[in-house]
Amino acid sequence: MRFATIRTTDGTTAARLDGDVLVPLAAADVGALLAAGEGPVAAERAGAAPVPASEASFAPLIPRPSKVLCVGLNYRAHILETGRDLPEYPTLFAKFAQTLLGPHDDLVLPAVSDRVDWEVELGVVIGRPIYRASPDEAAAAIAGYTVTNDVSMRDWQRRTLQWLAGKMFERSTPVGPYLVTGDEAGDAADLEVRCEVDGAVMQQSRTSDLLFSPADIAAYASQAITLLPGDLLLTGTPGGVGDARKPPVYLQPGQTLRTVIEGLGECVNQCVPDKA
Amino acid sequence: MRFATIRTTDGTTAARLDGDVLVPLAAADVGALLAAGEGPVAAERAGAAPVPASEASFAPLIPRPSKVLCVGLNYRAHILETGRDLPEYPTLFAKFAQTLLGPHDDLVLPAVSDRVDWEVELGVVIGRPIYRASPDEAAAAIAGYTVTNDVSMRDWQRRTLQWLAGKMFERSTPVGPYLVTGDEAGDAADLEVRCEVDGAVMQQSRTSDLLFSPADIAAYASQAITLLPGDLLLTGTPGGVGDARKPPVYLQPGQTLRTVIEGLGECVNQCVPDKA
Repeated sequence: MRFATIRTTDGTTAARLDGDVLVPLAAADVGALLAAGEGPVAAERAGAAPVPASEASFAPLIPRPSKVLCVGLNYRAHILETGRDLPEYPTLFAKFAQTLLGPHDDLVLPAVSDRVDWEVELGVVIGRPIYRASPDEAAAAIAGYTVTNDVSMRDWQRRTLQWLAGKMFERSTPVGPYLVTGDEAGDAADLEVRCEVDGAVMQQSRTSDLLFSPADIAAYASQAITLLPGDLLLTGTPGGVGDARKPPVYLQPGQTLRTVIEGLGECVNQCVPDKA
Repeated sequence: MRFATIRTTDGTTAARLDGDVLVPLAAADVGALLAAGEGPVAAERAGAAPVPASEASFAPLIPRPSKVLCVGLNYRAHILETGRDLPEYPTLFAKFAQTLLGPHDDLVLPAVSDRVDWEVELGVVIGRPIYRASPDEAAAAIAGYTVTNDVSMRDWQRRTLQWLAGKMFERSTPVGPYLVTGDEAGDAADLEVRCEVDGAVMQQSRTSDLLFSPADIAAYASQAITLLPGDLLLTGTPGGVGDARKPPVYLQPGQTLRTVIEGLGECVNQCVPDKA
């Protein structure tokens, strides 16, 4: 099944995709839907008409997750090609909820950065609380998968040893359009991930190359902290980012950033100049 | 003025310190109080009796900030003694809201770490939204100051280049007991910060040694993202952490961790073993 968070004249609503229409559900967004312990059985929103998916305005799939937990260096081929050994532990860092952007929204290129770069990533949404879970327990707590792009301001990211400054720009991280449940996504274990800029393929790999699986990442993080329904995991990006190209290339106003994961859908975001 | 978040039989409430009693206010916690744009003028909670401060159960001052933004390497003397140059930019990293702990709560030493370390830090609470602010504008948006300890699991912190894994343990970061407004804290520009373990002074410095002031940090972060009321900034720690001692020392069950900032108050947390 597929769920989305769509904008209405009265704020956002969770919705279920039925064929080519979105049926509004009685929850403000997909995060609230999961927190209520519902999902496939959620009640429909009384008096709300279905919306054709082609006409919907998609909000970030989970607008206000309690945590956005990201992994660096997680595609084997990319790690090895950079001359590194495979790491024993996932490299974790955080993003703030305010960094999330709708899957079709404009991506503003901030005036303070001239190195805005792409990172297609498989997004994982937690469905049930887990603490000190095994990988099997963690796998069972995953509600589903989505498409994300961990857009990164490389100049800010590299100013210090900690990456956060380049990862915390407001409305910079497309996520959505759908939460695709595990049964439909085939557990997301072997899907093509791809990032295109104006139609040119910049990144292309498969989730089968992930060193740490979604369940591995969730189980590891849960040794420290309880993962909650609606928490969002970004599982790392393969090779092909602009910053590592020779010469480096970065996003420019007017370009179209397309982030695609096989079977899950795509985010398409126009890059626009900062009006500040 | 001083504000706190205290636990009651019906959840938490914000409260104002009047002499030696806490007067409950009409907000669930200090974060909600600030989000409502109130503060000193907040209405008292109808029908709620004052609580002697000595008998109150203090929750984390801001239980659910939208952001916890931390700075590494920010005390000049400590940076210089480690042989580093003074950095041009603050080193930023994030913590999750679930890491916060009440100022008198037990600190559970997680079974999965044997290197739990202390970091006294001046805590800064944002009072009004700021985006792309100057340092002067940021200074005016600070609601006040508090006491925090960025307790860190050094083994987890050092497993990869990103520190988050050692900074994200649930209920590991004491914060409180009070939000002390800027007028009363003297803008927090020259206060003693001190950390004691079983009465032995482990860290002792002054906020006058901060390289990046609270306003500098807030202004810098606001270039990327809107800081919101209740957001919590941890401004870095001076020398004297256990991990840098020769030989290293770490917190042990039964010890008392005392975190003191002149004029702001103190957190006193008993270290207890993990029952897991």
